[in-house]
Amino acid sequence: MPSITSDPNLSRYASRARGMSASEIRALFAVASRPDIAFLAGGMPDTSALDYDAVAAVTDEVIRTVGPTALQYGGGQGLAPLREQLVTVMAAEGVPARADDLVVTTGGQQGLDLVAKLFCDPGDVVVAEGPSYVGALGAFAAYQAEVVHVAMDADGLDPAALAATLDRLAARGRVPKFLYTVPNHQNPAGSSLSVARRAAVAELAARYDVLIVEDNPYGLLDFKGEIRPSLRSLAPERTLYVGTLSKILSPGLRVGWVVAPEPVRDKLVVLKEAADLCQSNLTQYVAERWFATQPWMAQVETYREVYRERCDAMLSELAASFPSACRWTVPTGGFFVWVQLPSGFDSRGLLAKALGARVAYVPGAAFYADGGGAEQLRLSFCFPPPDTIRDGVRRLAGVIEAERELVSAIYAAGR
Amino acid sequence: MPSITSDPNLSRYASRARGMSASEIRALFAVASRPDIAFLAGGMPDTSALDYDAVAAVTDEVIRTVGPTALQYGGGQGLAPLREQLVTVMAAEGVPARADDLVVTTGGQQGLDLVAKLFCDPGDVVVAEGPSYVGALGAFAAYQAEVVHVAMDADGLDPAALAATLDRLAARGRVPKFLYTVPNHQNPAGSSLSVARRAAVAELAARYDVLIVEDNPYGLLDFKGEIRPSLRSLAPERTLYVGTLSKILSPGLRVGWVVAPEPVRDKLVVLKEAADLCQSNLTQYVAERWFATQPWMAQVETYREVYRERCDAMLSELAASFPSACRWTVPTGGFFVWVQLPSGFDSRGLLAKALGARVAYVPGAAFYADGGGAEQLRLSFCFPPPDTIRDGVRRLAGVIEAERELVSAIYAAGR
Repeated sequence: MPSITSDPNLSRYASRARGMSASEIRALFAVASRPDIAFLAGGMPDTSALDYDAVAAVTDEVIRTVGPTALQYGGGQGLAPLREQLVTVMAAEGVPARADDLVVTTGGQQGLDLVAKLFCDPGDVVVAEGPSYVGALGAFAAYQAEVVHVAMDADGLDPAALAATLDRLAARGRVPKFLYTVPNHQNPAGSSLSVARRAAVAELAARYDVLIVEDNPYGLLDFKGEIRPSLRSLAPERTLYVGTLSKILSPGLRVGWVVAPEPVRDKLVVLKEAADLCQSNLTQYVAERWFATQPWMAQVETYREVYRERCDAMLSELAASFPSACRWTVPTGGFFVWVQLPSGFDSRGLLAKALGARVAYVPGAAFYADGGGAEQLRLSFCFPPPDTIRDGVRRLAGVIEAERELVSAIYAAGR
Repeated sequence: MPSITSDPNLSRYASRARGMSASEIRALFAVASRPDIAFLAGGMPDTSALDYDAVAAVTDEVIRTVGPTALQYGGGQGLAPLREQLVTVMAAEGVPARADDLVVTTGGQQGLDLVAKLFCDPGDVVVAEGPSYVGALGAFAAYQAEVVHVAMDADGLDPAALAATLDRLAARGRVPKFLYTVPNHQNPAGSSLSVARRAAVAELAARYDVLIVEDNPYGLLDFKGEIRPSLRSLAPERTLYVGTLSKILSPGLRVGWVVAPEPVRDKLVVLKEAADLCQSNLTQYVAERWFATQPWMAQVETYREVYRERCDAMLSELAASFPSACRWTVPTGGFFVWVQLPSGFDSRGLLAKALGARVAYVPGAAFYADGGGAEQLRLSFCFPPPDTIRDGVRRLAGVIEAERELVSAIYAAGR
């Protein structure tokens, strides 16, 4: 059983939620590893739902049939037969690509890091949804890029807000290096870009000549198996696509990839080699054999079912116990629900009380580069079982209710 | 059987050997993959010498006993039980470290990349042996550091030359960010820093207040099992130590590490998380089980014996067939022999003729950041079997002899 604190973004949530003191961060970590806590803060997939007999069989086949190659160095672009399989995985979502367009990376995170390294100089602007994935914000910050957020709602990124942002930047003479977006079951907002808006975003990218970085970890985890057209399919010549096996197979293999036009792809290969020479051939072969020989879509469907049930548990408990002044997104896939607290709440300050009530979440500020998110928080339903999720949501409802009463009392006393 | 072109540094050798045209590079790659070539250019370990029954057993145990953790995300610092085992590996060479001092990286290469990212700003100076490891030069160049080479001989880095270089830099008001050195069976020179010089280098580092980055991929591959004191043991407070399992177990696991004082270690963990979130738990557990349950030193001894036999084959053939005007190092371990050609030779220009004679090497210029190495070349004995090594050295001797006659004839004609 993996530790509930094995989300490697944990320290990043904490460090990005500016103003958390070192002692608060220590408290979060200390409490998070307690078994009685409802840990609704992590982004770890439920790897216990994986078929380990199949993983063991595939791995044994790799070692026994191609051992000396699997245990050897590999090429900087990644294993060719794996890239062929990843093309098949993308085809299941209608994402067009050729094996030669791919660079295999250490999870999607290294893809984002190398893209940021290639494109971003200090002071450059990147446009991203607000809120946005904390790991991407960290990668962009590492190269001192400035992130400008664009508002999103239940239908994802708002094209009108995007156009206004691009106009505003253009008026300042600024051309964003790219638009970073997670169109499917976004982390942390849990919403997906509507089909109509996808066309609008692609059209805006063309009109303003902006590159798109489309990050799609959760697309296949739609609870109904619904597939929306990828931005890569709508604007192939200007979209870098970042994929990962972390959510449909395993994050422990550390296999992600970037699809890029040839000149960009070549530069990413050079950066990959400079960063770590090459990907593990062993984990690449295991992934290749998994998709070539196993009923991998059945495993995806198992994961979907696990997360759908947990999401249902979270949404039904939110509806049953959360104060009516709160709002939240209703995901149709992925791992996360995004909660809007009543006006005046501070989700960072509230965390200590939540931890005291044995429930953990990530404060919204972790997902903004500009200080936003104070009245918001992210709840994850990916890892804990449904009963724990319901308990956690109920406890958190109690914490928010108590805070509301406190705020009201203070307000009444001040009248 | 891994391809002889699976050395991921191949493209880097080519790109660093400045002046090689795109068509020459294509020719090198095309010829290198021909089965009849004696490929003395790669740095790949002979992974066929690994015990695959043991690897398969260990991997199966990992998947069956800790599968959901092995296939999950891990922490940014690396798996704690693996770090404990790596301390044992280092102890076999007398390198002092605690598990908490380690950061696990994607091979030694990512360690070098993260160290360069942490310390090097554009224009900074790094001091390194001349010649030096091409992957390190690439990492330093990626952060626009200037590499100043210090001469080495059969006893490794020359302390008098190091002192002179540090004086010269100080006179220009320059403080090097660190000294990068491979003290054992250096890549590409094949020589080791003598015991007396280790003390002198540690003393100089203290006197000039210079950090040391000690890269030790080959220390355990001494043909007689001889162990020399690490710089880390002589100057623990100012030495960052970079280790790897690539040469004593497998490069396909992509497990390396950096030992660093606490404040540096913490920063390296943050950089590791930003680069790729975390190392593969699967390959980390396989490595951990390997060292915890297998006779790993027996495997190291098997590797030593393989490389000792191949080195003997290379050295005896060099003595038998190379022109007397050539000089070469006599390694006592590792993978490489460094050859000094007769005065006026150009090892880069000679490569096309060598490839025509079905033998490949790496031109010396690949291992210098300052344009040096024209009259030198690297031969590797790690991968091809002894007969191929002997054939290759004999063919290369013929190429050099023909070139000598040509040079003499031109010289005579010009008199």
